[in-house]
Amino acid sequence: MEIVKYPQRESWKDLLKRPRIDHSELENVVSEILVDVKNNGDKALKDYSLKFDKVELKDFKVSQAEIDEANLRIDEPLKKAIGIARGNLEKFHDSQKVTGRIIETTPGVRCWLKSIPIEKVGLYIPGGTAPLFSTVLMLGIPAKIAGCNNIVLCTPPGKDGKVDPAILYTANFIGLKNIYKVGGVQAIGAMAYGTETIPQVYKIFGPGNQFVTAAKQMVNRQGIAIDLPAGPSEVAVIADHTSTPAFIAADLLSQAEHGRDSQVMMFTIDENITELVKEEVIRQLAVLPRKDIASAALQNSKFIVVSSINEMMEMINEYAPEHLIIAVDDYLKYEQKVVNAGSVFLGQYTPEAAGDYATGTNHTLPTNGFAKIFSGVNLDSFVKKVTFQYITEYGIFNIGPAIQCMAAQEDLLGHKNAVTIRLNKVTKK
Amino acid sequence: MEIVKYPQRESWKDLLKRPRIDHSELENVVSEILVDVKNNGDKALKDYSLKFDKVELKDFKVSQAEIDEANLRIDEPLKKAIGIARGNLEKFHDSQKVTGRIIETTPGVRCWLKSIPIEKVGLYIPGGTAPLFSTVLMLGIPAKIAGCNNIVLCTPPGKDGKVDPAILYTANFIGLKNIYKVGGVQAIGAMAYGTETIPQVYKIFGPGNQFVTAAKQMVNRQGIAIDLPAGPSEVAVIADHTSTPAFIAADLLSQAEHGRDSQVMMFTIDENITELVKEEVIRQLAVLPRKDIASAALQNSKFIVVSSINEMMEMINEYAPEHLIIAVDDYLKYEQKVVNAGSVFLGQYTPEAAGDYATGTNHTLPTNGFAKIFSGVNLDSFVKKVTFQYITEYGIFNIGPAIQCMAAQEDLLGHKNAVTIRLNKVTKK
Repeated sequence: MEIVKYPQRESWKDLLKRPRIDHSELENVVSEILVDVKNNGDKALKDYSLKFDKVELKDFKVSQAEIDEANLRIDEPLKKAIGIARGNLEKFHDSQKVTGRIIETTPGVRCWLKSIPIEKVGLYIPGGTAPLFSTVLMLGIPAKIAGCNNIVLCTPPGKDGKVDPAILYTANFIGLKNIYKVGGVQAIGAMAYGTETIPQVYKIFGPGNQFVTAAKQMVNRQGIAIDLPAGPSEVAVIADHTSTPAFIAADLLSQAEHGRDSQVMMFTIDENITELVKEEVIRQLAVLPRKDIASAALQNSKFIVVSSINEMMEMINEYAPEHLIIAVDDYLKYEQKVVNAGSVFLGQYTPEAAGDYATGTNHTLPTNGFAKIFSGVNLDSFVKKVTFQYITEYGIFNIGPAIQCMAAQEDLLGHKNAVTIRLNKVTKK
Repeated sequence: MEIVKYPQRESWKDLLKRPRIDHSELENVVSEILVDVKNNGDKALKDYSLKFDKVELKDFKVSQAEIDEANLRIDEPLKKAIGIARGNLEKFHDSQKVTGRIIETTPGVRCWLKSIPIEKVGLYIPGGTAPLFSTVLMLGIPAKIAGCNNIVLCTPPGKDGKVDPAILYTANFIGLKNIYKVGGVQAIGAMAYGTETIPQVYKIFGPGNQFVTAAKQMVNRQGIAIDLPAGPSEVAVIADHTSTPAFIAADLLSQAEHGRDSQVMMFTIDENITELVKEEVIRQLAVLPRKDIASAALQNSKFIVVSSINEMMEMINEYAPEHLIIAVDDYLKYEQKVVNAGSVFLGQYTPEAAGDYATGTNHTLPTNGFAKIFSGVNLDSFVKKVTFQYITEYGIFNIGPAIQCMAAQEDLLGHKNAVTIRLNKVTKK
């Protein structure tokens, strides 16, 4: 952990740099698999499952028997916890429903916006060493609330040909029916192009390793929408003299344990807190099971001391962190100045881990500075908004002349005529 | 205009095919210009303005004197028309503001969503033979309502070094201050990378020729957001025995006059209407100034007769038209079944041309089938939604155990510890 004090503005860019992600060298191998899946469908999926997952599958679709087995393997406390998370996520995402009011922009001219679910969406859930059943909740719940008709979930099988029971339990619990045991690039290809077994979708959501990420980028260029550009997870924590060093250290480590390329930053105007937090990090790191990963991530971490809150918030907005924890008593002072962040955690009792699982907000968030432009996954990610308009005879009488005038100025006389021909009929009446 | 009666479902894909767009052969020339602008800034802009626009510019920024001159050159009726369109667009886009309610998902756990404007956006407005001042309204008004801090507008100069006066008048009228006389690929490059004169932006909006479109796609891959993937404009019109053939013909032609690659489709369950509309198209086409363009577009146009409303709406949803006009008396029968469309025009007195200029809805819409996934430009296009959460001590007491349980299941014990360390303090009190 490097402590940087009162950096010059010219050094910001360098200080706030992220680990470079470049998937271009993977493109050939990823592209080859995608083409194969596109051309050979299920056969290609079987080949790659054997090659990468070391398993020979007869059927990709998860059966009722497999779901029943997963139900038995998940204990009651975990079921209860998943139930709590589900309830909170449902409440919050349900509150994001927008009912398009009808706006009469001119007498006789009515406009409205209607949210219509994207019909076919695909959710990718990684398996392997870190099966993320929480991501099933984060993607499946808004997809269900939005009303998407066809929700496909792909997740890799283990060597025993089975899917992680927590993933299966959770998917079934929230009502997902189409679960397929396919992972990696081949799963992205299957959802992008469709195979005999796996239906094609319009938009693909979910995290994954660098191959999965490269595959999502590639099918995105071919017209399949994706949730967000991917990058390593990251957190910025704001501390001051009211902060609890042990809390902050725990938050920094909870981010650092995600991966070696995770980013962990602390910002403060209080020099003293940096040493206190550093000591706590060392103490807590020593007993952390994922110590090796966290240590590697901490190599790139920085504690930045600045001279004013304004300067700090400018810097953080320039960094645009995925997660921002304002771990101080008087968080309002900072909160108002947040412009670029994925999700913000306020006060001393709001760890980022809470948002990863159960507050109700979504944990699929923009990384790598994309919080400047993009929202995290929310209900809108699963709908498109279609505009409707209805003009009465009186309405066209009112706005018709303006349209004629503007269309004529743009030399689009066919446009003008579509109005004239109606105005003639209205005024003749 | 080809009349297709009762097509088999297997033929749908072929029937609904769009003209193929492939910009890959432009990539080399576009990429070269982008790299040049990135490396050489204003100097490159000057070179390309001389090369492509045949004009030597001293200063790219439009001056107050130029705006004053444009004000004088626009006549009062046009100013009044632009004022009406502006008022309607403001009313409708203003109604799209969302105030994030605070949701208490669990006692002591509060979550909300805050819309925060994207700080820096760029608007591209084509010039040349068709200066689209209406697009200045469609992009500039939501950008202003959203509250974007830095709005850059680029539009090409004519050979006289001046910008179209209607574009200039409109931009100034709605309060856009940073207007630059730069067009084409070099304008996209300038907004994507920034130059000495033109500020870098995070998201680029606006239509353009195939070079501009290719440039937008290319900078998009480099992390600059864009409004929508581009494609030729298109309309689907639904007609029945109550429709007025002259209205429908005028709507089809108003779409066809956009460009040779425009798409024009009519759907009906009433065989008789097709001949009546066809006669009207021929009659109206004869006197249309942009007859050549419209005729070319009509070569690809189809009148499709189907046997039921359900079948028709399935087909239209498969086509996912940019514009859908339901030009019948009983439009409700069809409206309920719309799933995929950019903007929908209901009834006999709602021509698509009205939405192009003045109903209040946005005319920047998804083409090429992307209405299945994407919304047209709306207020959301200019904001990102940031989630906030605040947990009280009582709140972490309530949801803490669930988070601990889930984090442990995912083997993320650092996450679990960030909660445990807080719970310990709360329960000790």
